[in-house]
Amino acid sequence: MTAPLRVAVLGAGTVGREVVRAFLERGEDLRSADGATLVLAGVAVRDVAKAVATGIPEALLTDAPAHLVADPDVDVVVELLGGEEPARTLIAASLGAGKAVVTANKHVIAHHGPELEGLARRTGATFRFEASVGGGIPVLGPLATELAANRIQRVRGILNGTTNFVLTAMAQEGRDYADILAAAQAAGYAEADPTADVEGHDAANKLVILARLAFGVWMDPATVALVDAGGPGHGLPGITGVSAGDVTLARADGEVIKLVATAERGLDGAIVASVLPLRLPAAAALACTDGVLNRIEIEAEPIGVVAFSGPGAGGAATSSAVLGDLVAIARGLGSTWAGLAPAGVPPAGAGS
Amino acid sequence: MTAPLRVAVLGAGTVGREVVRAFLERGEDLRSADGATLVLAGVAVRDVAKAVATGIPEALLTDAPAHLVADPDVDVVVELLGGEEPARTLIAASLGAGKAVVTANKHVIAHHGPELEGLARRTGATFRFEASVGGGIPVLGPLATELAANRIQRVRGILNGTTNFVLTAMAQEGRDYADILAAAQAAGYAEADPTADVEGHDAANKLVILARLAFGVWMDPATVALVDAGGPGHGLPGITGVSAGDVTLARADGEVIKLVATAERGLDGAIVASVLPLRLPAAAALACTDGVLNRIEIEAEPIGVVAFSGPGAGGAATSSAVLGDLVAIARGLGSTWAGLAPAGVPPAGAGS
Repeated sequence: MTAPLRVAVLGAGTVGREVVRAFLERGEDLRSADGATLVLAGVAVRDVAKAVATGIPEALLTDAPAHLVADPDVDVVVELLGGEEPARTLIAASLGAGKAVVTANKHVIAHHGPELEGLARRTGATFRFEASVGGGIPVLGPLATELAANRIQRVRGILNGTTNFVLTAMAQEGRDYADILAAAQAAGYAEADPTADVEGHDAANKLVILARLAFGVWMDPATVALVDAGGPGHGLPGITGVSAGDVTLARADGEVIKLVATAERGLDGAIVASVLPLRLPAAAALACTDGVLNRIEIEAEPIGVVAFSGPGAGGAATSSAVLGDLVAIARGLGSTWAGLAPAGVPPAGAGS
Repeated sequence: MTAPLRVAVLGAGTVGREVVRAFLERGEDLRSADGATLVLAGVAVRDVAKAVATGIPEALLTDAPAHLVADPDVDVVVELLGGEEPARTLIAASLGAGKAVVTANKHVIAHHGPELEGLARRTGATFRFEASVGGGIPVLGPLATELAANRIQRVRGILNGTTNFVLTAMAQEGRDYADILAAAQAAGYAEADPTADVEGHDAANKLVILARLAFGVWMDPATVALVDAGGPGHGLPGITGVSAGDVTLARADGEVIKLVATAERGLDGAIVASVLPLRLPAAAALACTDGVLNRIEIEAEPIGVVAFSGPGAGGAATSSAVLGDLVAIARGLGSTWAGLAPAGVPPAGAGS
């Protein structure tokens, strides 16, 4: 048997807490029959005393994530801090040191994918990020493995739980966007600063990651269209322009408004991507995807259309993908893009 | 680069034809960036002249599948003959000789899984069968890989396209079972002898394969319950007891009748499995799965419920899974159960 892999978890928020809990409660069980054992080596948090109060042993805790990353005894770094910094620097430092990295950080992957992929390939470090799209729903792995022989034509889906919760509540309660958003924030379904969700940036980041697996290119997130003057968003980004009146009008036509992320191969081969509120027939499967559920549809040859659906967010569900990536690393399965050709920064003008 | 893998395809029916076509039309493209090249070495068919007429080069064809299997130049055998014999013997001979096998044959895997798994593990041969459940829908791979850290509680789904086509048509057209079945046979959606489909045996075989991945045991297909005296099947197996009147009565209650395959962990840890016509609320996602679509729902901790849906049959869709397995073999990813503990014949009384 190979030596145990020592795992450092950075962040003990919604997802990190569940990952740490799995290690503490399940221990040896977190492994495959043909892979290395995984051992929790440390957990970096902002407030050690608060983390101790949640039941994490003090001996595992530190408030210095960079020290954990630099620790020669740490083999695998699980980055669950979210946001740009210090996450990006810590991921890059880990990959640069040849350590495997698992992350759910769609912002960092979407914005720094080419550099991080290049770095991981140079050092031979494994980089896995199944949790960055669709929470726990398996989709990046199936795209790279079971669907490997397909030519993907289009990837389309509901990729953001917060906006889908808001749109679902608007449709069910007839109330206005601002009302529902305030209620969602009070209930913890939306963040205090909801900009990344409601303007579509979060879904755009996830779409960029899906496009890397589906089309083999790293798109610039800035090229994902977030505004369509002619649609139910009235020229405002994401769902910020959708009113109760729009929802009512759509319903009168047997339609539902959803924030739909789409990336597809254009006629010239370039990938065209958007995250826009669209009117869909009420009976369509995407239209029936309610609340915090996510659904990703893949249209490809020879398979036709396959769909993956489930909880697109939440600590427990997302921990499934993080832990699955850890087991995959213990089995030596390589990076999320393993099997696909390297993708770097696309040439100017491509991918838009 | 590793040496090319030479692939023999047994059978050029609905699925085999599409697999052969992919080789002939795409050739070198059928590989991964990190895997061996795949080369078509031969195709075994019943009628060589007929196969030549469909465009397969005569030099590739033989009517002696056993010779292809025994050919020392063949590294991978793709079994797409279906049914019990000679498929079982050819698969066993291939695995026994240490050759990798890809198959869509749910009957052989469900009925001889323990022996074939034991044989493959002894010789170190790779055995992959993603196409045996849900056509092209990725589900066995995600169960074994992305969902590896979950404890599966229940697997449930619509696993048979023929019966779902019949039930959907009964609900939409108000006609009786025998009428619709005859029309489906005429249209090629149902086989001349539809017993395996309409009595639930085909779905039971697929459920046994799902249970191997989900619960780590090989169930005896004979222990899958196909009859429920109190349900809308009126004590007859599969959909054979469902009448137009049952469909109408269900609709009056806002319900739909579907043939649902379920395998779940009982209170004592044993796996309980059934394939039964059930009444479902019309708005449920399974109830909305119409025609030849399949849908598989997985309930597990920590993920919650995730679902996979798409075309559960058809040559092109199913070839996606066969070709995906071939690319996985070229990448050295191991058997469909790779990472899971070995499963043999369960002790008497278990698994039922």
